[in-house]
Parts: sequence; structure tokens; C-alpha cells
Amino acid sequence: MTAAPFGQWMAGVQAEVEGALANFLPQADAVPHKLHEAMRYTVLGGGKRVRPLLVYASGALFDADPAALARAACALEIIHAYSLVHDDMPCMDDDDLRRGKPTVHVAWDEATALLVGDALQAQAFEVLAGTACGQGALPASRLVDMLRLLAGAAGSGGMCGGQAIDLDSVGLSLKLEQLERMHQLKTGALLRASVLLGALCGKELTAPELEALGAYSKAVGLAFQVVDDILDATADSATLGKTAGKDAADNKPTYVSILGLEQSKALAGQLRREAHDALASFGEQALRLRELADLIVQRKA
Amino acid sequence: MTAAPFGQWMAGVQAEVEGALANFLPQADAVPHKLHEAMRYTVLGGGKRVRPLLVYASGALFDADPAALARAACALEIIHAYSLVHDDMPCMDDDDLRRGKPTVHVAWDEATALLVGDALQAQAFEVLAGTACGQGALPASRLVDMLRLLAGAAGSGGMCGGQAIDLDSVGLSLKLEQLERMHQLKTGALLRASVLLGALCGKELTAPELEALGAYSKAVGLAFQVVDDILDATADSATLGKTAGKDAADNKPTYVSILGLEQSKALAGQLRREAHDALASFGEQALRLRELADLIVQRKA
Repeated sequence: MTAAPFGQWMAGVQAEVEGALANFLPQADAVPHKLHEAMRYTVLGGGKRVRPLLVYASGALFDADPAALARAACALEIIHAYSLVHDDMPCMDDDDLRRGKPTVHVAWDEATALLVGDALQAQAFEVLAGTACGQGALPASRLVDMLRLLAGAAGSGGMCGGQAIDLDSVGLSLKLEQLERMHQLKTGALLRASVLLGALCGKELTAPELEALGAYSKAVGLAFQVVDDILDATADSATLGKTAGKDAADNKPTYVSILGLEQSKALAGQLRREAHDALASFGEQALRLRELADLIVQRKA
Repeated sequence: MTAAPFGQWMAGVQAEVEGALANFLPQADAVPHKLHEAMRYTVLGGGKRVRPLLVYASGALFDADPAALARAACALEIIHAYSLVHDDMPCMDDDDLRRGKPTVHVAWDEATALLVGDALQAQAFEVLAGTACGQGALPASRLVDMLRLLAGAAGSGGMCGGQAIDLDSVGLSLKLEQLERMHQLKTGALLRASVLLGALCGKELTAPELEALGAYSKAVGLAFQVVDDILDATADSATLGKTAGKDAADNKPTYVSILGLEQSKALAGQLRREAHDALASFGEQALRLRELADLIVQRKA
């Protein structure tokens, strides 16, 4: 059987995740209306869904349970969405535009943005903890491991920790290793969690599998950020759906500011090769993960 | 055997929880230092630890696993602590003082306060998900239920939802039922989760047990808020460790503004009796839960 073209597979996953997110989020007619409306505005109808795509691509390697995959994918996307709402607030990046729409604190107000982010983080854990387990589904002990992994990736040893380092780096001239460390936490931790949670929806991982998926995640996570920095420096706001040129304006260290544009592009290409190499032992089954590495490096927004 | 005096039991639990919190929170010498320092500043060395006390008191009814109790208690206290940091921010209640110390956005800055809250919420789930399970400890499926319960109590159907209703109520004249509904979410959901999680550290609850604990929690949760409103109207900031008289100044509806002071005091007494009545079927074993209901109504701060 020939695999479906990548674009078709991707559109299918995105549509499935959109439907699942709409279902897992509180309905807008439930009290409190404004909060729920703003939560749905934040999460639905936008975004590339990179984390869900990684979940499904990794799950495809291990014949994962479809219902568990949907919950893991949505939990990760909801964590990601909450982080964007809080990042965009005036006390952080102070951004008015996200995914081509006014940010939550602009469309509503700061207090609502704060609560939307807080409520979404709890929602993410509720969605994942709602995964059916026992009796033919995932063992409950595996689900506990997955919840712990998600929490670790979201917290001060992961995404929030990376954000904190990012904040403290404004105006500093970071070394490349420091920049890499910051991004491994800020975006890398959640991307790695996506790959691992997708796999865990299928089976307990062996040490070599964990190592291979970890190496793939690390390369893809850094590539994602290198390309983000390249796009921030070269694309326009309309294409990005967010304000372009922010990093330079905010005096933030980036791959482009440290390495220059050409070397940054070369690094992205090298990381793409590393991602492919990490998947060697999985053979044909890793098709979607390879295609996602290509997408992440070649994207235009 | 005679039970230890309440004050002694309480001090013992508070000391145990303080030690467990210090252990479960990231160390201040781990990167990122400032974030971890602010997280520890927020959680450690202050607070009445009402939620942990409820966890332990409820666990005492069901011969609960001590290690699981410590994790459940810390998870709830960490969720509570994060909510205070975010509530105190300028876009919410804009408060400078909490537990007698400068609030996080005053001691550091708003961005740090935002991240401290976000990281603490993730930490709470990580702490609870780290509970040992299987083989003589809690069944993993029970732990999954506990994690789902915590997430539900923290999110838009619980604490965050109550906050959102609270925000939207400023300047409105709420009916008593609406005020009650708001507080059942804003503080009641987490207090109820404390009682239930403590019990679940011991055993799966029967329907009558769940109902009795639910009735106790509801009465105690409302009593807690009625007394908070009474203290806000009558005590001074030094005694409270936070700014007194805020609610009236902010034009927020309270039990005192709706019922008046005397009727509010009568209501607190009635809720205390309801809490005791709910525990009737548990007999002597429910001593600590009864004493906590008394404490919550009779406290001076």
C-alpha cells in the first residue's frame, strides 16, 4: 500500500485535531461565557498544529490508539495555545497580532487573557487525564507517566523555564550554546513531549527507541527555532500572522543575530539531516516524522 | 488512645507540608535561578495551609497512604499559591501585600509573576503525577482520577471560572445565589478537591461517602468565603497579612454587602453546623474535619 501524500495526511490530522479540540474545550454557552468564548477563540481555527502533527506522526510508528492520540495532541496544542496568550501580554512580548487575529488581551482585556491562559493549562491536563485506560486501552500507569511528562515539559524545567531565560536575555549577547539551551527549554521541551507522547500512545518505549526519538526531537526543536528566527528577520507580518521583525526591535538574541542569515540557513539544513539520521532505525514507518522535519525547515510562515 | 490536641495536630501537618513543599519545588540554585527563587518565595514560609489541612483531615478518615497525602496536599497548595500570584497582578486585584510580604510582581516584576504562576500550575500536576502507584500503593487508575479531579477543580469549571465570574461582577449587585455560585467555583472547587483527594489517598469512595464529603466541602467552602468577607470588612491589614477593606474599595459584591455583618456572622455559624451534620455518619474518625470547620469559621485572619 502506498502512503497518502504528505499534504493529504497533514490536512486529515489537522481536521481531526480541530474537531477534537472543539469537542474537548468547554462550550461557549456554558458559564462563564466570556471565558469560554475567549478560550475557544484562542485555540480553534488557527495555527499550524505542529505539535499535534508530531504526536500523530510519532504514533504512526507504534500503531498508537487513535483516541489516546487525539487527547495527547489536543493537550499539547492547548498548552502551546495558553503559552502564546500569556507571551503576547503587555508585561511579556506585548503583541497585538497572533495567527492573523487580535491577541486575547486586545480582543478582550488583560485580566481575561491571564485567566484564559490559566484555565487552558488546567484544561490540557484534564483532556489528557480523560484518556480511557485499562482493559485493552492504555495501561493507567503509562497514562500517569504521560501526565508527568507533559507537566515536566510545561513547567520551570521546560517551557516556562525557557521563557524565563528568554526574558532575562534581552539586551545580552548570548553565546550560541546559551541560545540553544534557552530554546531547548522554551520550544524544544514541548516538541519533544509531542514526539514521546505520540509514541507512548502505542507502547512503552525501549531505551534505544527513546534515544532515537529524543535525538530526532532535539534536532527538529532547534531547527524549528532557527527557522523562526530566519522568518522573523525575512518575512512580513501578513505572511507570518504575527508581527515580524520583533526580535531585532526587542533587542533579543537570535540565531540570525549571532550566526548571520546564511549560516543560520545552513544550520537549519544540517539539523534537518540530523533529524533524518536519528530515524534511520525505524525505516519506512518513520515517513511522517521525516516529512515533518522537512516541513519545519522549509516552511514559509 | 486520646487524639492529640487540634493545635498540635495542625502544627504537625503544617510542618510536614512545609518540608514536603521545600522538597518538591525546584531548588533555587537550579537554572533558571530567578524563576525558581520566586516560585519558592511564593509557596514557602507562609499561609494557613487550609487545603493541605483538609487533605490530611480527610485522609485520616480512610487510613490514607502518607506519601500520597503529602503529594496531594502540596499539589493543592501549589495551585492555590499560583492563583494568588496571578490574582495579585495589576490587571487583576493589583495588590502589593500577600501573607505579609510584597507580592511577586512587586518583589520582582509582572513578567516574573506571570511565569511563576504558570510554572507553579505545571509543578502541581507534576507533583501529584509523581505519586507512587501500583504494588501496594495507590492503583494507577485512581491516581489518574485524582489528576483529572485536580485539573477540573483548577480550570474554567472550577477556580478559574469563579475568578472570571468575580471579575465580571465588579459594580454589579449580585443576588445571594449568584454570589454563592461564584464562590463555589472560585474557592469551593479547590476546597472540595482537597477533601476528596485526601480521601482518595485512602480508598475508592462509595456514593454515600462521596455525598457526605461533598456536603461537608460545600458548607466549609461557603463558610470560608463568608468569614473572608467578614474579616475583609472588620480586620486590619496587619492582622490579615493582605490589604483589608479591598472588596468595598473595589466595589465588589460580598456577603457583608448583601446580608450585612450580623446576618453574615449568623450564616457562618449555620454553615459550621451543616458541616458538622454532614460528617455524622463517620463518627469519631471525622474529628479533624470537624475541628477544621470550627477553625475556618472562628479564625481571625
